[in-house]
Amino acid sequence: MKAHVGKDDLITALREIVGPSGMLEGDDVQARYPGYFMDRIAATVIVRPASTEEVSRVMALCNEHGQAVVTQGGMSGWVRGTQTEPDDLILSLERMHAIEEIDPVNRTVTVQAGVILQTLQEAVERFQLVFPLDLGGRGSCQLGGNASTNAGGLRVIRYGMMRQLVLGVEAVMADGTVVSSLNKMIKNNAGYDIKQLFLGTEGTLGIVTRLVLRLYEQPLSSNSCMVALTDFTKVADFLRFMDRSLGGMLSAFEVLDRDFYTINTAAGRHRPPLDGSYPYFVLLESLGYDQERDAQHFENILNHALEQGLIEDAVLPRSEAERESLWAIREDLEHILTDIKPFQAFDVSLPIGTMEAYMAEVRTLVSSRWPSSKICFLGHVGDGNLHIAIGSGSDRSADIRAVEECVYQPLQSVGGSVSAEHGIGLEKKDFLQISRSATEIDLMRRLKTTLDPKSILNPGKVFDITGEGVR
Amino acid sequence: MKAHVGKDDLITALREIVGPSGMLEGDDVQARYPGYFMDRIAATVIVRPASTEEVSRVMALCNEHGQAVVTQGGMSGWVRGTQTEPDDLILSLERMHAIEEIDPVNRTVTVQAGVILQTLQEAVERFQLVFPLDLGGRGSCQLGGNASTNAGGLRVIRYGMMRQLVLGVEAVMADGTVVSSLNKMIKNNAGYDIKQLFLGTEGTLGIVTRLVLRLYEQPLSSNSCMVALTDFTKVADFLRFMDRSLGGMLSAFEVLDRDFYTINTAAGRHRPPLDGSYPYFVLLESLGYDQERDAQHFENILNHALEQGLIEDAVLPRSEAERESLWAIREDLEHILTDIKPFQAFDVSLPIGTMEAYMAEVRTLVSSRWPSSKICFLGHVGDGNLHIAIGSGSDRSADIRAVEECVYQPLQSVGGSVSAEHGIGLEKKDFLQISRSATEIDLMRRLKTTLDPKSILNPGKVFDITGEGVR
Repeated sequence: MKAHVGKDDLITALREIVGPSGMLEGDDVQARYPGYFMDRIAATVIVRPASTEEVSRVMALCNEHGQAVVTQGGMSGWVRGTQTEPDDLILSLERMHAIEEIDPVNRTVTVQAGVILQTLQEAVERFQLVFPLDLGGRGSCQLGGNASTNAGGLRVIRYGMMRQLVLGVEAVMADGTVVSSLNKMIKNNAGYDIKQLFLGTEGTLGIVTRLVLRLYEQPLSSNSCMVALTDFTKVADFLRFMDRSLGGMLSAFEVLDRDFYTINTAAGRHRPPLDGSYPYFVLLESLGYDQERDAQHFENILNHALEQGLIEDAVLPRSEAERESLWAIREDLEHILTDIKPFQAFDVSLPIGTMEAYMAEVRTLVSSRWPSSKICFLGHVGDGNLHIAIGSGSDRSADIRAVEECVYQPLQSVGGSVSAEHGIGLEKKDFLQISRSATEIDLMRRLKTTLDPKSILNPGKVFDITGEGVR
Repeated sequence: MKAHVGKDDLITALREIVGPSGMLEGDDVQARYPGYFMDRIAATVIVRPASTEEVSRVMALCNEHGQAVVTQGGMSGWVRGTQTEPDDLILSLERMHAIEEIDPVNRTVTVQAGVILQTLQEAVERFQLVFPLDLGGRGSCQLGGNASTNAGGLRVIRYGMMRQLVLGVEAVMADGTVVSSLNKMIKNNAGYDIKQLFLGTEGTLGIVTRLVLRLYEQPLSSNSCMVALTDFTKVADFLRFMDRSLGGMLSAFEVLDRDFYTINTAAGRHRPPLDGSYPYFVLLESLGYDQERDAQHFENILNHALEQGLIEDAVLPRSEAERESLWAIREDLEHILTDIKPFQAFDVSLPIGTMEAYMAEVRTLVSSRWPSSKICFLGHVGDGNLHIAIGSGSDRSADIRAVEECVYQPLQSVGGSVSAEHGIGLEKKDFLQISRSATEIDLMRRLKTTLDPKSILNPGKVFDITGEGVR
C-alpha cells in the first residue's frame, strides 16, 4: 500500500477533480454521523464527486496510488460495512442525487446512487406507482447503498430484495473503468448478468453510480391483522394458508414471539391488542385491488383460519390509527433497546422447518450460560429471516463474542445464514465461514483479486484477502 | 488445446470414472436429437456421470488434458448453445435426475440438474405447490439447462425468470472444484452471491449439478381472456390497468399482432374469437384464490376497460375447452412455420415505450428490401419481450444475415437486448455488441479467463476469448 506516500499530492489532485465543494476534511468529516456501532469516523477526507466521470477519475487516481476507498451512503447499515481506517479515503455519492427519469409506461426509474430511498418512494407516487423496497432507514439510506448491500426489508415476500428490483447498474471499478449496464428490461439474456457483481458485494468490487429500478403498480387496498398462535408449526401452516388464500396479495408476514410482544405491550407502552400469553403473534399485511372486496375476503379467510384452529385469536384494525398502533408494536424498538442489555442484534436466515428447534437451541445456549439474560425473536418468517435481540447482562467482550457464537454456531448444521439482509461488513466477517464453504470464500477472493487487484475498494470488508500489502 | 493428444487415453480414463453405461460413442451419439438449427452432433463421445463427484473427476481430467466440454441438457435451446465441434466432449447430466427433497414447509425443492421441468412440475402438485417456470420445452428441457440459460417463459411477469426461482446452486468448475451453494432461503446476504456465476452463463463458467428451487402456492383460480385493441399505446395502458386492477394476480400478458392472429385464424385453422381487423390482440391470464369471486371481478374490470375505451372487444372463455382454444391461437406455431419462409425467429427485449416505433422500423426495413416478405410479432409485452417471425422469401445466407441486421440494429439506440430469454450461444454471438458495451464484454472475458483459464467449458459460446489456443 502506498496510501501514506504522497497523500498530500493525492488530496490536491482529487480536489482538482471534484472542486473545493467536493472535498470535506477535518471537522467537517468528524461532525458527520459515524454510523451504527461505530464511535467515530477514522478517515479524515471525504471526496464527493458530482458525476460518474468524476468518480471514474477519482478511482483511477486512487488505484494508481494504491489508496483505499470506502464508499459511504446513508450510514444506516448495521454491520460496520462503511467503517474506516485513518488512511482510508471516504467516497460519498451524496451530490449525485438526481432522479434522472421516471418512465411510467415501462414502469422503471433511473436514479443516481445518492438518491434517498424515501425521496424516490415519494417521487413515483404521482404516477400511481410504487418502489416497493421499504425499511426503517428509508429517510436516510441511499439507493446506491441499498443496491450494494442487496437490501431487503418489510415486503420481500411479495416484491423480493434489491437484487430483484434492480434492472440495470452503472458502476465504477477499482481502476476507474465505468461499466454501464443500465438495462431497462425485465428480461435480458444477452451475455453474463454483469450487474450481479455490484449487487450485495458491499462496495468491494465496484462503486454503484446509477441504477435502473423496477416500479410496481400502487396497490388499491391494504389490509392488516394481528393473530395469536399456539405453536410454531401453526405459524408455518398459517403462512401457507394465507399465502394461498390471498393469491399473490400477501405482502408482509412478521412473527413476534411472546418475549418481544411482552416487552412492547408492558404497562405504559403499547396497548396489548391480544392476550399476551400466546407464544407467537403474527402481523400480516395484504395489498390488493379493491378495499371493500379485499377487506371482506380478508375477514372471511381469517374466520376460516380460526375455525380450522390454525390461529387462536385475531384482531383487525378498523381505522388507520388502529392499523398504525398494531404495526407500532412490531416497529418500535425503543423498549427492546431499553430492556435488553447490552443490546446485541442478529439477522439470520434458515429454512422455516428448522426455525423452532433453532430458536429453542439458542434460548438454551444463552440462558444456561447467562441465567439472567433476555432474548426475543422477531421474524420476517415468510422470507426465512429471524431477527434476534439478546442481552446477556454482561458487556465484557468475551461474553459479547460468546453470545455471537451461541447464535451463529447452530446455523451451520441447518444450512442457515449468519446474515439474511444486513450483510457481513466487519461485524460478521469472523462468522462468514459458518454459512459459506472454504470453496465459496475462495471463489469470492478470486473475484475480488481479479476485479480489484490492489484491494483498494472497501478493503477488509466481508472477507480478508490473504497476501502481502493488502487487508 | 491438447484435445487430440492422447484422446484415447482420456476416453479410457473417463470410462473408468463413469463406468461403461456412463459413456456413449459412435452411433449411440449420432442417433440422438441434435437440437434446433443443428444438423448433426459433431462430437463423438457423450459422458454421462451419475453423481457430482463423477462430474468433478471428469472435469479435473478434462482440465488437465485441455479437453473442451460441452454440457447438453434437454436440447430445447434456440441459439445453438450446445453445438459441438468434432473434438469436443459432450457431458450430459441425464443420469442425475433425482428430485432429492421436496420441503413443503419451506416451499423449496432440491433437484439434480438432469430432472426434466415437467417431471418437477408434476411432482410438487400433491403438496398444493407449483414450480412456476413454464415454457414450450417443458417435456424435455432439464432444470440444469433452465438454470444455465436463465429460462423465462410464460409467467415471468408474475414469478420472474429462473434467476428469481433458483435459491441455491451446486456447480462443478472447469478444474473439477465443486462449489456447493445450496442455499434454501429467500434472504441470504452472507458474502457474494456465488450462484449468479452459474445462472444464465450458458455453461461457460461451470456445470450446474444441483439446484434448490423456490416453490409457490398452487393458485386456486384461473381466468383468461382475449381482447382486441386499436393501437399500441392502449396495449401499454391496458397492461398497467389490468396489473393494477388485478392486484398481484396477473400472470400472463401476451400480445399478438394482426399478422400473427391472421395466420393462425385463417380458414381451416383456429376459429377466430374476435374480428380480425384490429391491429393488436392481448391474451391475458390471472391466477388467484377464489374461482367465483375472481371470475366476477375479472369480468367487471374488463367491462371497465371497454367502457373507458381501452379495449374494443373481449372474449371470455366459458369452459376449459374454450380457454384452451384461445391459448392455442397463441401457442400454435405450426402455421407460422408453414406460412413464413424461410422461418427466422427472434427474441428481443426493449422498453415498452419504444416498442411501437421499433416494430414499425423493423417492418419498414424488411419490407422495403424484400417486398414479398412476411413478418409477425408475438410479445410477452409485460416483460418487455418481443418474439418476431420473419420470412424474407430468400434463404441465401446473405439475406438471412441481412434480416438479422434489420432486427438487431435498431435495438442499439433504444437500449434493447438481442436476447430476452433464449441466450446468445453461437446464434447471436456476432450481435452481442449491439446490446453490450466493449467494457461489459471485456468484463465477461475476465470472469471467463479467471474461472476457466484453459477455456474448456463450452468454448466459443456467448463471446470469443481472444488469445492463442483458445476459441
